[in-house]
Order: sequence, then C-alpha cells, then structure tokens
Amino acid sequence: VVKRIGIIGTGIMGADHARLLTDAVSGACVGGVFDPDAERAGGVAARSGGARVFADPYALIGDDGIDAVLIASSDATHEEYVLACVAAGKPVLCEKPLAPTTEGCARILEAEAAHGSRLVTVGFMRRFDPGYTDLKAVLDGGEVGIPLMIHHVHRNPAAVPGIPGSALITNSAVHELDITRWLFGEEITEVAVHTPRPSGRAGGTRDPQLLILTTESGVLADVEIFVNARYGYEVRCELVAEEGTVTLDAPPPTSLRRGGLHARELPADWRPRFAEAYRLELQDWIDGTGRGATAWDGFAATYVAQACVAALESGERHVVGMPSIPRLYRG
Amino acid sequence: VVKRIGIIGTGIMGADHARLLTDAVSGACVGGVFDPDAERAGGVAARSGGARVFADPYALIGDDGIDAVLIASSDATHEEYVLACVAAGKPVLCEKPLAPTTEGCARILEAEAAHGSRLVTVGFMRRFDPGYTDLKAVLDGGEVGIPLMIHHVHRNPAAVPGIPGSALITNSAVHELDITRWLFGEEITEVAVHTPRPSGRAGGTRDPQLLILTTESGVLADVEIFVNARYGYEVRCELVAEEGTVTLDAPPPTSLRRGGLHARELPADWRPRFAEAYRLELQDWIDGTGRGATAWDGFAATYVAQACVAALESGERHVVGMPSIPRLYRG
Amino acid sequence: VVKRIGIIGTGIMGADHARLLTDAVSGACVGGVFDPDAERAGGVAARSGGARVFADPYALIGDDGIDAVLIASSDATHEEYVLACVAAGKPVLCEKPLAPTTEGCARILEAEAAHGSRLVTVGFMRRFDPGYTDLKAVLDGGEVGIPLMIHHVHRNPAAVPGIPGSALITNSAVHELDITRWLFGEEITEVAVHTPRPSGRAGGTRDPQLLILTTESGVLADVEIFVNARYGYEVRCELVAEEGTVTLDAPPPTSLRRGGLHARELPADWRPRFAEAYRLELQDWIDGTGRGATAWDGFAATYVAQACVAALESGERHVVGMPSIPRLYRG
Amino acid sequence: VVKRIGIIGTGIMGADHARLLTDAVSGACVGGVFDPDAERAGGVAARSGGARVFADPYALIGDDGIDAVLIASSDATHEEYVLACVAAGKPVLCEKPLAPTTEGCARILEAEAAHGSRLVTVGFMRRFDPGYTDLKAVLDGGEVGIPLMIHHVHRNPAAVPGIPGSALITNSAVHELDITRWLFGEEITEVAVHTPRPSGRAGGTRDPQLLILTTESGVLADVEIFVNARYGYEVRCELVAEEGTVTLDAPPPTSLRRGGLHARELPADWRPRFAEAYRLELQDWIDGTGRGATAWDGFAATYVAQACVAALESGERHVVGMPSIPRLYRG
Ligand SMILES: [Mg+2]
Ligand SMILES: [Mg+2]
Ligand SMILES: [Mg+2]
Ligand SMILES: [Mg+2]
Repeated sequence: VVKRIGIIGTGIMGADHARLLTDAVSGACVGGVFDPDAERAGGVAARSGGARVFADPYALIGDDGIDAVLIASSDATHEEYVLACVAAGKPVLCEKPLAPTTEGCARILEAEAAHGSRLVTVGFMRRFDPGYTDLKAVLDGGEVGIPLMIHHVHRNPAAVPGIPGSALITNSAVHELDITRWLFGEEITEVAVHTPRPSGRAGGTRDPQLLILTTESGVLADVEIFVNARYGYEVRCELVAEEGTVTLDAPPPTSLRRGGLHARELPADWRPRFAEAYRLELQDWIDGTGRGATAWDGFAATYVAQACVAALESGERHVVGMPSIPRLYRG
Repeated sequence: VVKRIGIIGTGIMGADHARLLTDAVSGACVGGVFDPDAERAGGVAARSGGARVFADPYALIGDDGIDAVLIASSDATHEEYVLACVAAGKPVLCEKPLAPTTEGCARILEAEAAHGSRLVTVGFMRRFDPGYTDLKAVLDGGEVGIPLMIHHVHRNPAAVPGIPGSALITNSAVHELDITRWLFGEEITEVAVHTPRPSGRAGGTRDPQLLILTTESGVLADVEIFVNARYGYEVRCELVAEEGTVTLDAPPPTSLRRGGLHARELPADWRPRFAEAYRLELQDWIDGTGRGATAWDGFAATYVAQACVAALESGERHVVGMPSIPRLYRG
Repeated sequence: VVKRIGIIGTGIMGADHARLLTDAVSGACVGGVFDPDAERAGGVAARSGGARVFADPYALIGDDGIDAVLIASSDATHEEYVLACVAAGKPVLCEKPLAPTTEGCARILEAEAAHGSRLVTVGFMRRFDPGYTDLKAVLDGGEVGIPLMIHHVHRNPAAVPGIPGSALITNSAVHELDITRWLFGEEITEVAVHTPRPSGRAGGTRDPQLLILTTESGVLADVEIFVNARYGYEVRCELVAEEGTVTLDAPPPTSLRRGGLHARELPADWRPRFAEAYRLELQDWIDGTGRGATAWDGFAATYVAQACVAALESGERHVVGMPSIPRLYRG
Repeated sequence: VVKRIGIIGTGIMGADHARLLTDAVSGACVGGVFDPDAERAGGVAARSGGARVFADPYALIGDDGIDAVLIASSDATHEEYVLACVAAGKPVLCEKPLAPTTEGCARILEAEAAHGSRLVTVGFMRRFDPGYTDLKAVLDGGEVGIPLMIHHVHRNPAAVPGIPGSALITNSAVHELDITRWLFGEEITEVAVHTPRPSGRAGGTRDPQLLILTTESGVLADVEIFVNARYGYEVRCELVAEEGTVTLDAPPPTSLRRGGLHARELPADWRPRFAEAYRLELQDWIDGTGRGATAWDGFAATYVAQACVAALESGERHVVGMPSIPRLYRG
C-alpha cells in the first residue's frame, strides 16, 4: 500500500521532496509531477522511478493514480491548487505560506469546513526538527517550569538586495511565528517591531529586524531576523522558564582545529539544517498521523505576519486580534 | 611608592576590595577603613595588614595617611562621600551607582568641573573583564564589520521577593547600560521596555524584563534582565555586525561528565564571574591609567536607567534626551 | 519493487531493524521473521505489517517470498545463518560480529569466494553515522592534511559485572577497530593494550582498557574502552593530522541551564546515538549501493580483535599478521 | 615589607616575570637583574622601576639588597645558580627544568638537605592555572570518584625542525609529568612511548609521540605531545574516574561567527594560555605559602623524563625506579 504522490512545482523544494519520497520515506512513491517548465518536470520524474509528467496541474490533482498532492509551486499559486485538492477530496501538503494573504487562507478554511474534515497540511517543517521537538519535550515535561520568554535568532547569509522589509517577516520570520504558536500551544496577541540602522549589505532593505511577540498567557518572544548576515545560515533559540532555560543551537557532529581556530562549520542555507525535519515531515504526512501544521496554523501564521508588517510600518505595538479558531481545528 | 587606600564601607564588596588591594594588586595597601559597624571594619583592617580603623568617614577622607579613597558603602551615601573626596582633591573609586539620582550625579559633575580635573572613577568593573575587553577588541579591530545589534542576557538566581521592577534596571541592567555605551563609544538615545508575565518566583516583581535600547548611530541593543532565574548567575551577550557576530559567554575552564550530563558549572553570583575584572579594575585605578568609568559615565548610566524606568512604567518608547557631555570628559 | 526482508532474531536489535524497515526505509518491507521465542517473533511480525512468522530459520532463508535476510540473532549463530544465505544466493546483512572466531569468518569468506560475488554485509553501522562520514569527508578532502593519530573514547554506563576483559575488545572496541580501518582505508598491523587498575564498579573485569593500534602507513590510534563508565553512553574521537585536527563528539541539538549547570544530555545507551546510522545503513543495504562493511571487513575486525585480546593477555605488543585480502574484496 | 627580587636571565620568560613582579604582584619589586646581554638586562631594569643591573650573577645572589632570586637563564646554568642561592640561604624560584640531568638535580637536593630547610621552588606554573586547580578540586572533592585514567594533549604550532625526539619529552611533556604527579599525589612507576610516522613538518623529529605512564596506585596516563601541530597552541586533558570524568579545555571567553564558521580562537603559544598561572605562581612565591613545586618535584620530573627518553629509544616499557623521597620533602 504505497501512496502515490503528485508533486506540483519541481523547483529546488519540489525536487528535494521528490527525492525524499523516492529514496528515504517508507510507503510513498512519486506518482506524477507538474511544472510550468516541462523539462524540469521531466528530469525530476526520471529521478523518481519513472513518475508520470502531467501537462496540467488540475489533471494531476484529479487523476485516479494520484492519492495525495504536494504543492511546492510559487507562493501565489498555492491557494488555487489547495482549493482544487480540497474539492477533489485529496490530502494535500502545501509548502508555506498556505496563501500570501489572510483572505486567501480564509477561503481555504471555508473550503475545508465545507468539506467537513481536514485535508490540508502546511509545510512548517520545523515542527519535525529533532531540535525543536527536543525543546518542546523538555518544556512539556516540566523540566524547566513555566515559560516566560523565548529569544529567537534566524539568519541567512544573503538576500536579494532591496527587497521590502515586510518580506523578512512573511518569508523568513513566519517560521518563528509558527514555532512560537506551536511551542506554547496558544496564539500571539500583540506584536511590535524594532529596527536598527540597516546593514550596508542589504541594499536598502530594513534588515535586520527585532520582532517582539506576546502570547495569550503572557510569554514574551523576541525574534532577530537578519537575511544578510553574511557568515552563514543559522537558526537558534533560548527558551527562558521559571526554573531554567533550554537552548536549541543544533551543533554539527564534528569540529575542526585549524589555522588558529577551533570551529564548527555552519551551513550555507537552510536545507542541510532542516534536512532531517523535511524527511520526518514527509514520513509523518505519508503515515497520516497528522502532526503537521493545519490550514488553521497556515492562516494564523499569515495573520500574525500581517500584524507584524503593520507594526514594522507604523513603529507601534499592534494588537493581533486573531479570529476565533473554527470548530474543525479545535481539540 | 605604595598608595595608601582608605575604604569606606566594609561589607561584602568593601571587604573583597580590601583583600584584593592587600593580596593581589601591585603598588597599593589599605591605609584605613571606615564602616558604621566598627567591629566589621576592625576585622577587615586586621586582615589588611593592620590598616587604621577610622570612626568618621570624613576624617578618613581628609587624613594625610590616605592617598585615595574607595567607596563601597550603601548607595544613598555615595554622593556625599564622593563630594568630600573631590573637595579634598583625592582620587576616589566609587562603586556603582555614582548616585541613585541624576541630580546627585549632576552635583558631582559640577564639583569635579569646579575642581578642574578628573578625580572620580565609577566601579563599572565589566569594562575590565577579559571577556568584554576581547569583545571590544574584536569589534574595534574591524573583524566583524559595523555593529548593528547586541543581545544581552543578565540573570541572577534570586532577588528579594517583591522589590519594585525599577530595581532590576537601576541595580542590575545598569551594567548593560554602561557596557553598551562603552562598547560603541556613543550615547543611548531611545529606550523601551517589554515585560512578559512575571515569574511566580518573583513575589510580584515585574521580573524578567526586556529592555530595548537604540544608540546614536542606530545600534539596537536588547537586554534580558531576570533576577529570579533560579539556575545560577549568568551574563552573556552576542554582538551582531555586518560581517559576523561575537558572543561572550565566558565558559569555565573545566566541564564534568556525570549523571547523564556533560556540564559546565555556573557561578551562584557575580563575584566569581567578575573576580578578575575587579582585580584588573583596582590595578588600573592604582596605576592611574584612567581606563575606568568617569563621573560622566556614572551620570549617563543613571540618566539612561531613569529613562528605562519611565519606559517600564508607561509602556511606551522614551527618548532619552541626554544632556551634552561637559568639556572635562571629552576626547 | 519492494524488497521483502526476512529477519532472524527479534530481540532488541532485530525488533528495531523491523521497525525501521517498516516505518522509515524506502523500498523495503518485513516479509518474514524467525526467533526461537515464537511469541516475541509474533509480536514483531504484527508490528511489521503482518509479516509471516517462520518456525525454522532455514525455511525463512530458503523461502521464495524472502528477497534478502537480516541476521540479528545471538553471535554464535551468525556463521551458520550467513552460510545458509550464501548457499541460497541471497543478500544478507549480519549484525556484528560476522562470527566470533577468525575461523568462522574464514569459512564465510570461502563460501562467498565459491559463490563468486559479494552477498554479505556486516552491520558496522558507524560507517553510516553522519558524524563519522563528516569526519571522513574532512580527512579525504585534505582539509587537515596527512593523518598521524586518532584518539578514540568509547564508554558504556554499565556492563555485566565480572565479564572477561576480552569482551570489552570483541564486543565494544571492535567498532573502533572497524572504523579505524575504514577511515584510513588500510589495515592495522600492530597492537598493544595498557590497563589501569580496574574500576571498582567492574566486578573484577579489566575495565577500562587503552588499546594502541598502528596502521600500515604508521597512523597511531588509541582507544579508551570503558564499559562501566557510569555517567552515560559516549563515543568520541579526535583525528590528529599534519595541518589540524577533527573532533567527532556529536552534541545533541539542545542544552539545559538548570540547577547550577549548563548541560547537554548524554544518552543512556548506543541506540539513540546511532539511530540515524542504523536507518541509513538499512536504506543503503536496501538500495544495494554496497557501502556497508563486507565479509572481509567482518573477518578483519575479528582478526584484529583477536590480536588485541592476545596483547591484553601478554602485556606485550603484538604484530597482527593479517592475511592478504582475497580477490573478491579488492578495489 | 616589599620583597626585592633578583632576576637572573632577562629573556622572554625573565622579562615577563619582571613585568608581573612590577605591575601585577602584591608585595614584590624587582631589586636587581643580571643577563649576559647587559643591554637586555638594562632594558628590563628600566621597565622595572629602576632595578639595579648586576654584572655578575653571584654578586646579585649575594647582595644584601636582594631578598630572593628568580632564575630564568638557560637550562644548563640553572644548577649552579640554584646551588649559589641555597649556599646564600636565599629563596629561589627556578624555571623548569631544575637541572637537565638527574645528577644535577640530585646535587641540589643534597645542598638543600644540608641547609636543612626548603629554599627552592621550581617553576611548574601549571599547578597555579585556574583550570588545573579546578580539576584537582573536583577530583579531591570526590565528585567523580576514584581516578582511573587521564588523557593529556599538549600541542605547539611549530618547533625547530630536526630537534631530537627526546626534546619533546624533556622540554614539553615534562609539564604533564609534573601535573600527573601533582594531581594524583603519587609517583609515576612505569612508562612507555608509542610513535606514529612523524609529521612531514617536523624535519625528521619523531613528532608527535604518545607517552603512557602508570602511577603507584595504577592510574594510567597518556600524553600526546605534538610540537609541530601547526594550527595553534593547546593544552587539554580529560580525567576519567569511577563515577564520571572532568575535562580541562579552558575555552576563551568569546567566540566568533564569521566566514561559515562558529569558532573560538586558539593562542599561538603558551604565554596567553598560562598568563594567569604565572601571575598566581609568582604571587604565591612572594607570599611564601609554598604551594609551588619543590626541588624534589623538580628532581622527580627530570627522573621520569629520563625514563621516558629511554622508553622512546628502546621501544619498550620502562620501570622508573624512583628513589625514595628525602625526609625534607615528606608530609
Ligand atoms: Mg517550509
Ligand atoms: Mg560594580
Ligand atoms: Mg552494530
Ligand atoms: Mg615553566
């Protein structure tokens, strides 16, 4: 009983997912692929045990030989493909963001509500990272007591010069927004954004930024997002609780002594850092155990991100004002 | 040519300074001590090579056998003793704060201006900590480029329950206020304070807090101050610059593997962490090389701390509005 | 094309392998299981998607519904099962040791030579550990120059009191013997064993021990093996080369600050430490890419272990005198 | 009561000691200096508060204005100067080695015995290093139980090419010989030396080496000594005991993230690593508290070093056969 997955979008992420489904996940194969670039789709299909290449994404979604769909296409297309999957009654794993706007996300919530059961998973892969699951296990096990603060650091070596400051929030810090909700099991209620002078390397982008988030129970989370950090890719956090703290820094297994330094190597981008998270996310999705982010989580992440963008622009604290969670996602 | 130091206040800090001056600093001895508790003063004098015990602090300040004065008495008394030293024309090292109010600090600035040369050093010992001086050397050496942010963490295991939240700023975070000014060589211009729900261990104190500071050139500094952190004493920071970051965490020289853990021990309070800083601070003061914090630095630290207290109380961003630096402290 | 694996031995290791093959490896399922304890076999079969339970291991090996065999039975039975697999022309993954004696291993080499191609893989899983493969990649990439020494540490929290000292070598240090051969791609030519006074926790066993190994090209490897180390399970090494060193210590992703310590947790046994290695070993075996240890590697590990046991007993350096590698395993 | 120290030998070490005695030690000054290079002596004297320059080392030793003598001259001259100090009844701190030969050391023991009390301290400064004293405190406090093994690593970036292999033992590893004796409070009874192929950077020297030492109670110590390690200077050890281990690695207070690495800087030579040890050693010597290495310790270090040199040359284990400790050094 091998699930046949259809992949929409065979860029870096889609190709990576195809490889994992083919080589490293139990109970799955790539049944079909679609990409606007048919040659690229063909290459991925060939490396995926001879999957079918579809000329039309909706044909793929509707095909009887496709059991479930993975969406790794451009952000703007996520909504329509997810809605088509829901309409077809097929499970779908959609890369973040679920949709770039809260309105788009809301339409998906409505469609899923109309369908009557959950079909949508959002690719917030960090929820499967062994570091983050360790962190949550320590917190939930009561080893450090009641949480009070968390400090996040999220750095990329370089970004396209001059992108809008909002992109740091919606593309990058959105992972911390999701993780903060997931870790504490509650909503973010208030946000603020502080910015230093921008890095001269950022081409005018307001980079870095410091987001300040408050949760329902009063946990304070700060997020340094810095997409032109130059030295490498790094994601870290320290959870501060009443009896102690937990730090996630995920050091690599080896260190070098060379040239006057004792050093550990940092990855150049997020893929080596979260390779295991992606594998576990896919295995969990194939197993149908449902630990991934729901459509509601996708909506909430976009909703809070929009509040942060507003706070960035106004320089003021913003109350998030999250709508209440629909019945389908409770409990 | 051994300098004879008079010590006012022989509590924990004063006794520690007496020991260092006697046992570990070149060119100094304890010439006299005063404490309201004469027995305590006598004990320190006995352990300091037979220093004289004074019954009156002003007599000590004025005595011909005393070359310079170290003030380690209660905060409220600092101003009057410092003013007496300036009046007597004697160098004085005053534990922080220079005075609890900006008005008190300003009176010392005026006295020193009237005297016409610098006599006052404020005991911001972190400026002599090998970790902080390393950090500054890396920054000043251009190894990581232009600074953008700094994240500070400052934790004590326990504080008196129910102290006012302002005390976290004026007693503890004031060290980070000073270090931030010293590190970047510029003033703090704007402050804000965010707070999570308070720790249940704090007896009602708003603890922890997150201070957000902006400097003249636009560096953004955040300071977690947490005085009931339970697990131990810890001071850390990470400086984020355009080409890289520098972290100060000062690990102890040894680690233990025992009971399922690979661990480094954390100190129970600030004294072991900053023992070397205190020694170097005293040696520098005795040598007269003048690298310690000036009366202006003491004034500025208190001034910014007051702005932070106002920001804590209002929940708003506050512009600091620092007066301009007097001629005596320029260059 | 899913490979149907027959598992002989469903103790801790066999059950773990069954779980991985079922849940976490692509292209494999458990086709059948055998264990002298039929109830235990039945439980594993039930958790493995309804695999068949065999009453006879040779029937399992010979069954047309079994494509390949995994042997996780008691050490003494390895040889006969491996020989049966070779006779049946089926690929076999045998947990270490290939056989407890060099004679037993030699009979397998002969059988495989008679068969004419390689069928046997030995479960030296560390070759697939991301830490060890990192280490080898750094070495092979020339980043630290020509290797000169390696220091290994291998500790278990507790062993059965009073086991013979030779068991530390044949059961535990044999992993380092294999890794040393694999890392440098050459044989161990000379061995010596030094021992301190034994731990009072070892019930008379000569524990710990320090093995000293020399390779063909003159690399010196030392191995601390300590099976009653109490504090936890730990495997580390530092490779010393002409231009630098590489350390493998594989820290967990999170650390705790609590109770006066900043600590990382150590595992209680080898399974969490090498969980990823086991998964990758099985995936590689299923993929048939042949990076696992061969029967020759299994023979060589046992051969060098026997030389170490002789060195332990005599207190003298021993020349290993490894036979030359058979044609089947060259190149 | 400032002790006036006469310094014989004003090379790097002597000049460093002069600076510490002048600037960083309480209760001492440099009273006189001698060096065969009178100009060099004059420079050090000038930087030492106007100390006298002596033209004759024996005149310095005998001078009434010199209370104690520090010997930092070439190794071959140590014996005669120490004997002159003993004859003059003056305390003397002699850089290691006490004398290059056991016979030379023995003559000093005889002289001191004839004098009837201890005057000689040997400059094994590591006994004062905060890392080593931490390590010993943990061991003596029973936190890890009875010691079984210790692994030492001692690396220098470069040495003069082609020096004899014995020099690695007598110049460098002698520090580990002393520390091992000091840490466990017992003698080394048996030694062996293993060597890999030498580094191509060593110009023919047998470098690195692995010394294996056994103490009276059966602790096994191994010492990697590598004087052309290229990457930096480093001294580390891990003490292995029945209930846990203690590692001394003395990380610097700051780390850098830059260029794809998270790194701590390693010193280029031993002086920054042991700067604090030298200061504390001198302060202890000035205080006369007698925690430094005695003439017997100096003799024993040379004695064991000679046994290691014999073991290096023979390739065999050597019994040390240490003479029994003279009455003067007991208890
Ligand atoms: Mg993602
Ligand atoms: Mg202070
Ligand atoms: Mg194994
Ligand atoms: Mg020395």
